[in-house]
Amino acid sequence: MAVAGIGVIPFRSVAIAGVGLLGGSLGLAMKQRGAARRVIGIGHRQSSLDKALALGAIDEATLDIREGVAEAELTILATPVGVMADLVKTAKESFPRGAILTDVGSTKAELARTIEELAGDSVHYVGSHPMAGSEKHGVEQADAGLFDNALCFITPTSHTQPNALAVVTEFWQALGAHVRISAPPEHDRLVAQASHLPHVVAAMLVNVTTPDAMACIGKGFRDTTRVASGNPRMWADVCLQNRDRILEALRSFSHEIRTVSDIIDRKAEAELLAWLEAAKAVRDHHVQA
Amino acid sequence: MAVAGIGVIPFRSVAIAGVGLLGGSLGLAMKQRGAARRVIGIGHRQSSLDKALALGAIDEATLDIREGVAEAELTILATPVGVMADLVKTAKESFPRGAILTDVGSTKAELARTIEELAGDSVHYVGSHPMAGSEKHGVEQADAGLFDNALCFITPTSHTQPNALAVVTEFWQALGAHVRISAPPEHDRLVAQASHLPHVVAAMLVNVTTPDAMACIGKGFRDTTRVASGNPRMWADVCLQNRDRILEALRSFSHEIRTVSDIIDRKAEAELLAWLEAAKAVRDHHVQA
Repeated sequence: MAVAGIGVIPFRSVAIAGVGLLGGSLGLAMKQRGAARRVIGIGHRQSSLDKALALGAIDEATLDIREGVAEAELTILATPVGVMADLVKTAKESFPRGAILTDVGSTKAELARTIEELAGDSVHYVGSHPMAGSEKHGVEQADAGLFDNALCFITPTSHTQPNALAVVTEFWQALGAHVRISAPPEHDRLVAQASHLPHVVAAMLVNVTTPDAMACIGKGFRDTTRVASGNPRMWADVCLQNRDRILEALRSFSHEIRTVSDIIDRKAEAELLAWLEAAKAVRDHHVQA
Repeated sequence: MAVAGIGVIPFRSVAIAGVGLLGGSLGLAMKQRGAARRVIGIGHRQSSLDKALALGAIDEATLDIREGVAEAELTILATPVGVMADLVKTAKESFPRGAILTDVGSTKAELARTIEELAGDSVHYVGSHPMAGSEKHGVEQADAGLFDNALCFITPTSHTQPNALAVVTEFWQALGAHVRISAPPEHDRLVAQASHLPHVVAAMLVNVTTPDAMACIGKGFRDTTRVASGNPRMWADVCLQNRDRILEALRSFSHEIRTVSDIIDRKAEAELLAWLEAAKAVRDHHVQA
C-alpha cells in the first residue's frame, strides 16, 4: 500500500471505530463529498453496524478492530474518549505501514500522551476535535452535513509526523470544516471554556431545579440545558480527562456567581445593567443568530 | 360599557401597553383567534407603533396611555416590569368602570403589591406570566403562535376580584396557553429556578469566557447561552424584583458547583456518571425533544 500523503483524497479505505452519531456522520459525509472510496465501520454491537450499513454510512462492518484497521490508510476513533486507549492497544500490530490515526475526542492532552506512547511507530497519530455533535446519539441521528462549516481543532505534538498533519488537515477540509491547529494543552484550555463548562453548567441547572419548578420550564430552560441530555458516559470521560482545566473553569464561574450575587444583593441597578449588556454584546458579536 | 365577565370573548376592545415582541404577538394572536374585535396599541415610540399597525398586530395606536386604556375592557401591560408601576399611576383615572388589567411580567409578588396599591378600585388587576418569549425583540419578531401550548401563570392575591380572575383565565386559554394558577410568591419561587436562574447563568457563561475561547464556540455554547442575548433592561428589572429568590437559586447553584468540583477533583467516576445520568434522565423526562 502506498503511504498516504497530500492529495491522497479520495482515500481508498477509511476505518471508523464507533458508528454512533459522529462515526455515522463521518461515513455519510465522506460518501457525500467523495472523500473515501470505501468506509469500514468497526463497532461493538452488530445491531449498530447493521443500521450504519442500511443507512449507507459504511460499506463494510466488523466487530474486530484488528480486522477493521488492517487495510485502512486512515482510521478515525469515534468512540467515547475513555475507551480509545484500549482500542489502540488492541489494534496496534494491525495498522498497515504508513497508516494515519486520528480521533474525534473532546479532550486532547492526556489522550495524545497515551496514544502516542501506546502506538509508538505502528501508526502516525494526530488528534482532531470537530466542534460538532448533538445531545442525540445513535447512528440513526447521523447527518452528512454535521461538519460543514464546523470548527475542527487539529492538535499536533512534537512527535507528530508532518505528513500525517497535512493529510488530516486536508481530510477535515474536504468534509467542509474550518481547521484550527492548536497544541493539545491549548485546545483543552479553550474547549474547557467553550464546551466543557457549558455542559457541566447545563447538568447543574437540571440537578438544582426542584421537581415542581421542572414542571414549569419553558423554551429558555430547555435550550440552556439541551446539552445535559448528552451521553453521560462520554461526558464523564471528558470531565476526567480534562479535569484540571474544567476545575479551573468552575472556579472562575464560582467567582462570577459571587460577583453577580453581590451586585443583585446591593440592588446596584447600573452595574447589573452593564453586566447584562456586556454578556449580550459579546454573545451577539460571536453568534450569528 | 358592560362589565366584562365569563363569555366576554371576543372583547370589543383590548389595549396593549408596549408593542414589542410580546405585545405584538398578543395582538396577532388575538386577531388570529378572534379574541378581540379591536386592539389598541400604546407605545412610547411612534416608529414601533407604525410597525405594529403595518403588521396588523394592532388596529389603533396611541402614545398616550390614558387615551389608550379609556375604552378597553382589558388592558395588558407588556413593557419591562420596571416601568409598569409608572404606567398604572398615569393611567389610573382613565380606566373605564369594570375594566380588567393584567400584565405579562416575569416577576409577580412585588409587582402585584405595587399595582394593587396604586390601582385601588380604579381597575381589577390580576397578574399573568406567559412562559413564552425569545431573546429577540421588537414587534418585527412578533408571532401569532407564541402562546400556543405555552404555560401561562395567573397569579391572584387575596384582593383579586373572582370575575377578573375568570376572565383573564379565559383570555389566555383562548390564545392557546395552558393556565396555571399560583400565588405570586409561589410563582416567583418556581420561576426563579425555571427561568431567572438559567438567564443569569447564561450571562455568567458568556462573561467568564475569555475572548480566545469565544472564538471557538460551537452549537452547545450557542444554545446554552441563547437567553443571554435577551433584553438587558428587562432582565435587570427581573433580577431586582425577584432578588431574594434569585439569590437563593444562585446559592444553591454555588453549592452544586462545590459538589461537582469535589467529585471531579476526586476522580470519582461512578459518582460523576450517576450525576450526569440523573441530569439527563430528569431533562429527558420533562422535555419533549
